[in-house]
Amino acid sequence: MSPPPRPGEFELIARYFAPLAGPGGLGLIDDAALLTPPPGHDLVLTKDALVAGVHFFADDPPVAIAAKALRVNFSDLTAKGATPLGYILGLGLPADWTEPWLREFAQGLKINGEAYACPLLGGDTVAGRHGLFLSVTAIGAVPAGTMVKRATGRPGDTLFVGGTIGDAALGLLARAAEREGRTLPWLPDAQDAARLIMRYLVPPLRNRLAPVVRDHARAAMDVSDGLVGDAVKLAAASGCGLDLRLADIPLSDEVRRAIAREPSLLKTAVTGGDDYEVLCAVAPEDGAAFVEAAWKAGVRLTEIGALTAGESRILDAEGREADLGAGSFRHF
Amino acid sequence: MSPPPRPGEFELIARYFAPLAGPGGLGLIDDAALLTPPPGHDLVLTKDALVAGVHFFADDPPVAIAAKALRVNFSDLTAKGATPLGYILGLGLPADWTEPWLREFAQGLKINGEAYACPLLGGDTVAGRHGLFLSVTAIGAVPAGTMVKRATGRPGDTLFVGGTIGDAALGLLARAAEREGRTLPWLPDAQDAARLIMRYLVPPLRNRLAPVVRDHARAAMDVSDGLVGDAVKLAAASGCGLDLRLADIPLSDEVRRAIAREPSLLKTAVTGGDDYEVLCAVAPEDGAAFVEAAWKAGVRLTEIGALTAGESRILDAEGREADLGAGSFRHF
Repeated sequence: MSPPPRPGEFELIARYFAPLAGPGGLGLIDDAALLTPPPGHDLVLTKDALVAGVHFFADDPPVAIAAKALRVNFSDLTAKGATPLGYILGLGLPADWTEPWLREFAQGLKINGEAYACPLLGGDTVAGRHGLFLSVTAIGAVPAGTMVKRATGRPGDTLFVGGTIGDAALGLLARAAEREGRTLPWLPDAQDAARLIMRYLVPPLRNRLAPVVRDHARAAMDVSDGLVGDAVKLAAASGCGLDLRLADIPLSDEVRRAIAREPSLLKTAVTGGDDYEVLCAVAPEDGAAFVEAAWKAGVRLTEIGALTAGESRILDAEGREADLGAGSFRHF
Repeated sequence: MSPPPRPGEFELIARYFAPLAGPGGLGLIDDAALLTPPPGHDLVLTKDALVAGVHFFADDPPVAIAAKALRVNFSDLTAKGATPLGYILGLGLPADWTEPWLREFAQGLKINGEAYACPLLGGDTVAGRHGLFLSVTAIGAVPAGTMVKRATGRPGDTLFVGGTIGDAALGLLARAAEREGRTLPWLPDAQDAARLIMRYLVPPLRNRLAPVVRDHARAAMDVSDGLVGDAVKLAAASGCGLDLRLADIPLSDEVRRAIAREPSLLKTAVTGGDDYEVLCAVAPEDGAAFVEAAWKAGVRLTEIGALTAGESRILDAEGREADLGAGSFRHF
């Protein structure tokens, strides 16, 4: 039996990607995209590449893969205080791609692009000899001079993190177990498992936070490689140290229940990756206003520590230094 | 014997990529890059993804892989009349990457970025589970409203192409033969082979042509997927047909000698990919000025046909329609 016919490169682009293109995409028939920058604004550009087997499972739902590829990039823009203008998609298809897969993937791009009012501007689709990869460049804008950097925190600044931490790291374990038909003793509840897996598959929608970060944060980044390691990175980039209070890190009920059964998962939660929440250093006198503005934008912020003039320290509930080992995900 | 130690993700970025970053790259320690658009300009954005085994051989020199990844993108900007402002690099490293490889690759980025005065703005380096891939987004600028599009040619416009055509397509055959230790009967001369291989490995430097294209071309694109197919595409995008004169297509001496020995290579030359020369539709009365300005910018243009109100036709030396079969490279 021969495989079902698949559209060629140009038909594929016309059928699935051209409908997602904004005016600057020129119908995706030109060599390049055209972007007229909003006057008086700086552009903020970010790139996250995702590889099957590293950043997602090849058999994850295509809608979720598309959502993740966009949202991890939009998360960087939000942390810089930027509003998305458009994105450019590099897509390497595996040898065995199918049209139904691509249709669902394009649907995921459409839904998530629209959720952020961020059109497709262009890209390049190639037949990868190897596995699926995605390489998204997202372009955002901030009023000139207002991009929130990582290196501009000061000793004494309060550290806030958005949402809850660790859901995705535990969700990754749950997803891996699900694929292999294993059960996890710390995760007996199917609803908890499903919620954690969802948080691994699809990063949270935080775009309404961008102007709040811009108005209040002195330094910010998104939490993608584990909260503890990322917080140390923000402090180091700012030439500061850090007192981070483990007991104050916000955890969801699902994560709390899992840690109650298996205490070592606390370390997984606070050092694992894929949270895509915002981490901000804020002048202490501005903290209350920041929390209130974020709440109005739909995000609960939690104070988890402060930048210092000393060394970076991770403190347990008794104020002693906690030993977490390697604190951050790195690719190699 | 254990493999030599390799730098970690963040050391790698600090050691090899941070020195290539422009001011907007923020030392590559932030989540995103900052770009203040030149006032009164539009931005032109392009993306080309390259995969080992598809767009280059995994054992091509790393300097050449870097050169190609940048130049294929800069070629798109040139064809749109745009001056490069910066680029963003998505890099998926294979499992067996080595530090010497990376050092040479970074050297290739440095040389070619500097040749185009185009700094690295940011990117993402990931451990690909699979083969090497590169996904470059290049950003250029044109004075507002002057980007040269593909779809704006008119019947009667003269078609010009820059440089020579087919060197890279024959160079690919020569490179493949070299890797496999085969000799090609149509390529007995080692110097010819080396020249063609170089043209396959490293696309030509055409950046001085950008303002000339902007000043003179009514429509333009870069020739990446084969001249014949790309010319038909430009005509179709412009709602035109095309009379393309095969005998007028500019060929290098190396390509001419190869065709003299193996006439079927003419088809390979004019339908093969990887030329990265510019293809322009120009108002007939402007042709002479266009050719002269391009010559001053170091590029010889050749008139190869015209846009028409009829069907697209590829004509042989006697003015009859030539049969070339599938005229254009496509990925699938």
